[in-house]
Amino acid sequence: MRTQVAIIGAGPAGLLLSHLLRLAGVESVVLESRSREHCEHRIRAGVLEQGTVDTLNEAGLGARMQREGLVHHGIELLFERKRHRIDLTALTGGRAITVYGQHEVVCDMIAAAVEHQQPLYFDVSEVSLHDLTTDKPWVQFTRDGAVQRIDCDYVAGCDGFHGIARESIPADALQTFERIYPYAWLGILAHAAPTCDELVYAHHERGFALFSMRSPEVTRLYLQCRPDEDLAQWPDECIWAELHARFENGDGWLPAIGDITQKGVTPMRSFVCEPMQYGRLYLAGDAAHIVPPTGAKGMNLAVADVRMLSKALAARYREGRDDLLAAYSATCLERVWRAEHFSYFMTNMLHPSFDDTPFVNRLKMAELRYVAHSDAASRMLAENYVGLPFRA
Amino acid sequence: MRTQVAIIGAGPAGLLLSHLLRLAGVESVVLESRSREHCEHRIRAGVLEQGTVDTLNEAGLGARMQREGLVHHGIELLFERKRHRIDLTALTGGRAITVYGQHEVVCDMIAAAVEHQQPLYFDVSEVSLHDLTTDKPWVQFTRDGAVQRIDCDYVAGCDGFHGIARESIPADALQTFERIYPYAWLGILAHAAPTCDELVYAHHERGFALFSMRSPEVTRLYLQCRPDEDLAQWPDECIWAELHARFENGDGWLPAIGDITQKGVTPMRSFVCEPMQYGRLYLAGDAAHIVPPTGAKGMNLAVADVRMLSKALAARYREGRDDLLAAYSATCLERVWRAEHFSYFMTNMLHPSFDDTPFVNRLKMAELRYVAHSDAASRMLAENYVGLPFRA
Repeated sequence: MRTQVAIIGAGPAGLLLSHLLRLAGVESVVLESRSREHCEHRIRAGVLEQGTVDTLNEAGLGARMQREGLVHHGIELLFERKRHRIDLTALTGGRAITVYGQHEVVCDMIAAAVEHQQPLYFDVSEVSLHDLTTDKPWVQFTRDGAVQRIDCDYVAGCDGFHGIARESIPADALQTFERIYPYAWLGILAHAAPTCDELVYAHHERGFALFSMRSPEVTRLYLQCRPDEDLAQWPDECIWAELHARFENGDGWLPAIGDITQKGVTPMRSFVCEPMQYGRLYLAGDAAHIVPPTGAKGMNLAVADVRMLSKALAARYREGRDDLLAAYSATCLERVWRAEHFSYFMTNMLHPSFDDTPFVNRLKMAELRYVAHSDAASRMLAENYVGLPFRA
Repeated sequence: MRTQVAIIGAGPAGLLLSHLLRLAGVESVVLESRSREHCEHRIRAGVLEQGTVDTLNEAGLGARMQREGLVHHGIELLFERKRHRIDLTALTGGRAITVYGQHEVVCDMIAAAVEHQQPLYFDVSEVSLHDLTTDKPWVQFTRDGAVQRIDCDYVAGCDGFHGIARESIPADALQTFERIYPYAWLGILAHAAPTCDELVYAHHERGFALFSMRSPEVTRLYLQCRPDEDLAQWPDECIWAELHARFENGDGWLPAIGDITQKGVTPMRSFVCEPMQYGRLYLAGDAAHIVPPTGAKGMNLAVADVRMLSKALAARYREGRDDLLAAYSATCLERVWRAEHFSYFMTNMLHPSFDDTPFVNRLKMAELRYVAHSDAASRMLAENYVGLPFRA
């Protein structure tokens, strides 16, 4: 098999890249080790930045998102038992976020790929990358028991943090940066109508909690927990009691109780590798960087990466220009580090930690009060939360 | 001896409090364990917030400051070998800072106290506070070899971090919050004309450096160093070489070299005690809280405290109201914690530390770039740097 760009991974990064390349007249093949079913049902992030929404709409992938996505113009911070609204739209000159599950985005992109007969192979195994530092890289994989080979010009590593793309780069060619947080999130999906139209980020001395929603019938809730938290210790009634304790506030607002249809523990990690390129291999999304979920930046960074990568590859094929490809890593990393800093700031401010000194506890409360009450500080949170404009 | 308010300490807090009380018709006596000479020559902070300047002017203490103080409308951040100006005045709707040494403020206030025959006793010793939880507190001290006693209604503890006022409070009546930073500042005064009209805060991988000035002929410079730095290891030529290495930048700007007339090491500490009151004793300034010098908040917080305390005592004597005195600690602590957070933010962002992980190093650079380039983030730095408005 021969193509121009071999894309490893059919998550949001890989699928969007193949679409954007098709629109630019560049051929690609997408390889995915999991099943289509698995990809379409993997519950992940759900907050889309304005720029992500714009990118999906421009790519013709936004029809269902426009119908079913929930546009939010603000978020709430709950601390000292009071709710404080951050008016995202007023603070950013009209920008907003859209709540629409990442797996829904993936479903829409897979449907579009099938419709356009985009080569997209699920359930492949033993994927390996070869001759990445030559101008004739190739990818080997096994499909239906047969070993196959794709010869290509470029490889896009979009296969996530645990994927083989970054692993294929010699360790001494990468510098990595990492922080593991001493807490995690216990997340649930509940069949209950959301009792607030906007996300509520709660700082409580018992721990962080987040109220969000997936649809007019489904509430998504998170509780700060230990990284090794045992779900067996959390019968449903304990989860609701803990949520109600952490969301306690003077208005009497609380999430509605409903059947819990999914439970899981999400670890919290920050990770970046530099550069995001090795020879003809370009990394995008979680393959190159991870943020803790607090800032809702994970999928949005993946979209920003592949938006840049598709432009760079289009410039290469349509104009013979290599400059955007050469600048790819540095251009993406600027946005990545901004998002890493913002995610760290949100995470740190909102989570009490067993290793916080009393001084640090007080600083966090001072920071929360400042963010809620200063126009400049609210604006800073808002502009990062809705997503800073793309540079190019 | 009998007075209404016994004030312990003739630093900026104690001296300003006695002035403001006199203007409000409240009697006070100031006791200071050091000599007048010592107080007038103790080199400390030099950046006055807009609100501090306004307070001194309103109290009639601003004549020389208005003639000799240097009004600054911006500061510069130097990192990645480039200077970035933060336009304080444009970002805060017209506010500015004034560079005027704390010891000059002290000289002006002592001169005014002498002029108004304000009781002000230097060189006292063995000061002790008594019956603070009764309505008849008293202070004992030794002056010219004789033990004396002041009976009073209230005691103001303005005698700094190492003073006896906070020490007089039972440990179980206070909660303290503290952070000791793993670095310090080596500061010099140099007889050299400042080569930049504004302060320059430099983040360099060798460490932080600060360019500031005391007058048109005197430059004040600081270098991040170890807390236990030995000045004997720093001959003048090494200090200049290190300063020039840290201020290196693309424009070729550098501080001018001149005779070094003073050298010292300043430790970096954050400290707060809560509440700032015990019975009839009210703490103000460094006696209650310490900030690292990076945010230039130390003297400004002291001024904000005594401004509030003088209003509260005036309300007590003139209107018989105790509510402002009752609210004194909570009102001050709100501003104190804002300043503690800002000072921590500036200190942390600008100082590389041996215990920073590579991830944290990158976060600091991302934060610096954001503060320099985002209007919201610049505004956040600016509004804190010039000082947030007083609440009352």
